[in-house]
Amino acid sequence: MKRLAILGSTGSIGQSTLSIVEQFPDRYQVATLAAGRNVDEAFAQAVRWRPKLVSLSSEELAAQLCKRLNEAGISGTQVVYGSEGTVACSTHPEADFVVSAIVGVAGLEATHAAILAGKPVGLANKECMVAAGEILTAAARERNVPILPIDSEHNAVHQCMRVGDHKEVKFIWLTASGGPFRKTQLSEFAAITPEQALKHPTWVMGRRITIDSATMLNKGLEIIEACRLFNVPASQVRVTIHPQSTVHSLVEYVDGSILAQISMTDMRLPILYALAYPERPASNLTFDLAALRHLDFEEPDFERFPCLRLAYEAAERGGAHCIALNAADEVAVEAFLDRRIPFTEIAGTIGKVLASTPESHPATIAEVLASDREAREKAHALVA
Amino acid sequence: MKRLAILGSTGSIGQSTLSIVEQFPDRYQVATLAAGRNVDEAFAQAVRWRPKLVSLSSEELAAQLCKRLNEAGISGTQVVYGSEGTVACSTHPEADFVVSAIVGVAGLEATHAAILAGKPVGLANKECMVAAGEILTAAARERNVPILPIDSEHNAVHQCMRVGDHKEVKFIWLTASGGPFRKTQLSEFAAITPEQALKHPTWVMGRRITIDSATMLNKGLEIIEACRLFNVPASQVRVTIHPQSTVHSLVEYVDGSILAQISMTDMRLPILYALAYPERPASNLTFDLAALRHLDFEEPDFERFPCLRLAYEAAERGGAHCIALNAADEVAVEAFLDRRIPFTEIAGTIGKVLASTPESHPATIAEVLASDREAREKAHALVA
Repeated sequence: MKRLAILGSTGSIGQSTLSIVEQFPDRYQVATLAAGRNVDEAFAQAVRWRPKLVSLSSEELAAQLCKRLNEAGISGTQVVYGSEGTVACSTHPEADFVVSAIVGVAGLEATHAAILAGKPVGLANKECMVAAGEILTAAARERNVPILPIDSEHNAVHQCMRVGDHKEVKFIWLTASGGPFRKTQLSEFAAITPEQALKHPTWVMGRRITIDSATMLNKGLEIIEACRLFNVPASQVRVTIHPQSTVHSLVEYVDGSILAQISMTDMRLPILYALAYPERPASNLTFDLAALRHLDFEEPDFERFPCLRLAYEAAERGGAHCIALNAADEVAVEAFLDRRIPFTEIAGTIGKVLASTPESHPATIAEVLASDREAREKAHALVA
Repeated sequence: MKRLAILGSTGSIGQSTLSIVEQFPDRYQVATLAAGRNVDEAFAQAVRWRPKLVSLSSEELAAQLCKRLNEAGISGTQVVYGSEGTVACSTHPEADFVVSAIVGVAGLEATHAAILAGKPVGLANKECMVAAGEILTAAARERNVPILPIDSEHNAVHQCMRVGDHKEVKFIWLTASGGPFRKTQLSEFAAITPEQALKHPTWVMGRRITIDSATMLNKGLEIIEACRLFNVPASQVRVTIHPQSTVHSLVEYVDGSILAQISMTDMRLPILYALAYPERPASNLTFDLAALRHLDFEEPDFERFPCLRLAYEAAERGGAHCIALNAADEVAVEAFLDRRIPFTEIAGTIGKVLASTPESHPATIAEVLASDREAREKAHALVA
């Protein structure tokens, strides 16, 4: 029986994780839940799962939840709040496994604390690896703590890496859907609206990640994530456009063999893989191979997707540049969604922030967060 | 350093194996070579590789080779002949690994002897597994001798099976090119000529295997081979038509993940994999993933390819029925190539031989060979 700490329990990955717990009651239990501002959902989850600890973002929300739990006669669930509350969830002595699924750098401290506490982590938060991958992977190696990727691409890579030795890997090939603008004329890019960019062809996701898919900055973050998770240089990570999003990624070995992982586009699959590794429990999330029909692959166009090029640059330089890539993008995407900058200025803003970022390698989470704030300030000034 | 016994050294797989030895002189040496009737090629190989032992099919051919080696001043290579000679090659004390690549049941005895002698086998001969798989795998299990498949499909399955536990495998999916008649009207099948059937769309192979690809009996033999090699029932082995022959096969796990192996259509790749397992040496046989473009998959049509249905029937019944499937097919294909029977009578002949085969499970190689002769006699009578 694995007892889970779920960071980001009311988000999409958190809810999918709970649906896996529901499906496999003899394998998984809920130990702690860290939510954000959604008190209603946190209350419902606390009633259903009776965790030892629930964390919300503020003292006020925590008080609301306390009151409702008392009224409902639920005891045995302690309510905490803020970043200290999230850390309390991720390091709780009764948690055996931490699902890190808080979006953005907000989940960073709690994920780091979980690794320091020796708890295996299922990582759905790619910003953690982009901003602090060097720190997190060093801590995990030191304590021999596994970090299992929940991002579908990296989860696929993790599976394909099992068919050979690390030194026998030639390339990691991340697949990308190519987003909604794979075929759009370059001349029309400046006029792309938020509504157009929010229509992702294959995955239903949050707003920022959907825009990041349209610019392919999302794939850029995944390149950096892959470098850190699998300890390879950026030159060994490549991208192939695969519009069907059925092959989740591939690993090419030096002998000429390529291994690919194929499955439904359903996040419950990588979550289940991470939770159960090295076992594979039977699920009903089966893929009809007979329905595979056509799989297409094409090379990405770096002119169409300048964010990809920027991500390779950041990956090569590491440290502050990876932090700046992520931070500047988040600010720029927000500005684009608010119609303050055109679509093409997302890459423009990131490029300018990267250019003004001096080379440095933050060694602590505090330094990472300071570097992140600095990049955000630069980006805000640019989109103002 | 692995010292190889190569059974079928002058054939296509044998020559590809020697090209691997040539490419990796610090990994592989030639210990023994078993050839057939091609004295010229056997002489050239003996001169080049200086094996301890060479075997030819007859005493007369062996005497010719001896004479030529003496004239060339080559000493240290002993020449033997016949099935005893082949066994001497496969069990030679200086051979560490046996490549079993003699076509047909002719390689059976020597492969069995190699396993009994505790030598790991790279198996390129599918008839061995079809006719005597129960005996060979039992002997290999008893002595803990690995059998590494060199057939490209089974080699792919072997790789994909490493990403999970045996009990977590749901289906083995063998890919099939579908051969040249995948789109031919059923009404035209009776008029198919040997010339049409010998044109394989993706692989260049021997005559029988090319016809077997056109009828898909080849895939049928591979279904049986997969059952034996991977210890699964026929109901867990499925076929998908994949005209590009780029995905060499797939394994579907119970959790919903499917692993696929992709590489060039070059037999040196599975040979290298089998020789080097569990290592993967760097090769120049790399696949350009950017050139992957389109991969198509479709369900096989059992009406168009009745041999597939016959193979499933034989796989379910095992023993003598698998032997009869292979033996009857070999006779029927010969008759078709000689224009004695129409294309559609290949399946017709096999079906009749299977129907008249009583259920039995030969327990020795001698019984297998007797059962094989019996089936051939029945088939010969049918095509006469």
